[in-house]
Amino acid sequence: MFRPQIKVCDCTIRDGGLVNDSFFSLEDVKNVYAALNAAGVDIIELGYRNSKSHFSTEKYGAWRFCDEDMLKKATDGVEKRAKLAVMQDAHKASADDLLPKDQSVVDIVRVATYVKDIDKAIHLANSAAEKGYETFINIMAISHVLERELDEALQQIEEESHITACTIVDSFGALYSEDIDYLVHKFQRYLRTREIGIHCHNQMQLAYANTIEGIIKNVNYLDGTLYGLGRAAGNCPVELLIAFLKNPKYDIRPILDVIEKTILPMRSNMEWGYSIPHMISGMLNMHPESAIALGKDAKNSSGTETSFVKFYERMLADENA
Amino acid sequence: MFRPQIKVCDCTIRDGGLVNDSFFSLEDVKNVYAALNAAGVDIIELGYRNSKSHFSTEKYGAWRFCDEDMLKKATDGVEKRAKLAVMQDAHKASADDLLPKDQSVVDIVRVATYVKDIDKAIHLANSAAEKGYETFINIMAISHVLERELDEALQQIEEESHITACTIVDSFGALYSEDIDYLVHKFQRYLRTREIGIHCHNQMQLAYANTIEGIIKNVNYLDGTLYGLGRAAGNCPVELLIAFLKNPKYDIRPILDVIEKTILPMRSNMEWGYSIPHMISGMLNMHPESAIALGKDAKNSSGTETSFVKFYERMLADENA
Repeated sequence: MFRPQIKVCDCTIRDGGLVNDSFFSLEDVKNVYAALNAAGVDIIELGYRNSKSHFSTEKYGAWRFCDEDMLKKATDGVEKRAKLAVMQDAHKASADDLLPKDQSVVDIVRVATYVKDIDKAIHLANSAAEKGYETFINIMAISHVLERELDEALQQIEEESHITACTIVDSFGALYSEDIDYLVHKFQRYLRTREIGIHCHNQMQLAYANTIEGIIKNVNYLDGTLYGLGRAAGNCPVELLIAFLKNPKYDIRPILDVIEKTILPMRSNMEWGYSIPHMISGMLNMHPESAIALGKDAKNSSGTETSFVKFYERMLADENA
Repeated sequence: MFRPQIKVCDCTIRDGGLVNDSFFSLEDVKNVYAALNAAGVDIIELGYRNSKSHFSTEKYGAWRFCDEDMLKKATDGVEKRAKLAVMQDAHKASADDLLPKDQSVVDIVRVATYVKDIDKAIHLANSAAEKGYETFINIMAISHVLERELDEALQQIEEESHITACTIVDSFGALYSEDIDYLVHKFQRYLRTREIGIHCHNQMQLAYANTIEGIIKNVNYLDGTLYGLGRAAGNCPVELLIAFLKNPKYDIRPILDVIEKTILPMRSNMEWGYSIPHMISGMLNMHPESAIALGKDAKNSSGTETSFVKFYERMLADENA
């Protein structure tokens, strides 16, 4: 039995872009896009549509900006079954970065925001909606929000936006299933006319399990990435989601194939997945940047103390500071 | 808040012995034993006490047999806080392999069994109990048992054995949280005077989440291994369990330290952890041996078809055969 309302959103290139500053080759993006379409995934997010005034085009690759001509190159010649999404960061994007929908290959604009930037996020999402796009809002770093501010933000979203779905983003991979229950229930209470989404990270090896918990609680928009490719410990692996969902429209074969031929080779110059530093930052509910920096330090022998126990003590001290 | 009845059983050397035919160096075993004692882990399983008539002492290392003198060498000089366990396979061990408890450093004998061998298992466990040991029974391959046979086996265990706890073993990493709920409830219904244990594998990245599900359902004996070291996709990582449990008797630092210094270096000649072949065998509820063989074939270029899609098709055909 399956729930036909469930939609899988693959954000491999978008979230993976946080690992490699969005420097994916066009060929890799084409392969990923073609495979996910063939697999029947519902939404494919190919990167950020962020502002060139916030990001250097030398330091960041094409998929940080998703210019229309790049998207056309990536999608040309593929039988389109999925909706194409881009993400805008509420504090790093501009309404002007979007053409009217009828001049764009993009279907969905997902606005990522911290709770404090909710006004910017609603403004961006509404601008996109006025231009004809379907819109989403993703609330990042959900494990660090003040509850009262979250309540207000959700009420504003319900009253002031035109979004399809609002996504719970466990940026720090710090949530347990009981936290997912609690948050989903809260989101449902405020967002009576919207769908709920879930986007989990794998610091404590709970990304997939927490996504299933969301499904059980009637979350219908599920984020995942190929082989979990994504920042720090990575994301919910989309191959596991497809294995779990019983909807016959999905076919796991193109996903297995693109993981083998396109994603696994990326491991020679990209790092993601479970590690002890990531586990420590997840268990302490901290931003993954320290754990990522520790990995880089260990390689550069920069002199930072890299032993796991010292790292743990340092993070504990930061947490209690 | 913590539940004081909860006991963590580390089986790194025992389950990890399925990866390297139990060829751990004495020094590594000493380090693991010392660290787990210092961390406050409740039970440490250092290997199998299996019969030399079933296993060649040339093809298998010392920790497949756990002779008393080896255990003494591994544990000498360490302040003992944990109970020391060994495992006997119901169909590969003999009651004669155990000395009377007062001549042994072992505290607990865990008997691993398939449901079909439950009579042998109860006999072995009772022999050990008569010699003075605390005993457990672990029911392996639980995702393949016929329900009626499991019901009978549980009733026999309750009526005929002296075990402390009976452990649900998800050998194939094929269970979801709802399966854990169902099985725990069944075990509790039959084993009214015993504790329940849980031992999960990580084929679908659910080992830790399923163990937490067990905790929520009042399972008190939790198996884990350092960094998940164990057969195929490995086990529930004991460092995550310790991070989750709030009992102040546990200290995660010695665990982080031994992972860094002893476990991670093992990766140069041992393989475990999530992979696509393991994921496929988990989602299809199949024995991990095909996925393990695939990894070896890929290295040996033996000519077996190793592409993920071909492997998936082959496993599907086996499943439907």
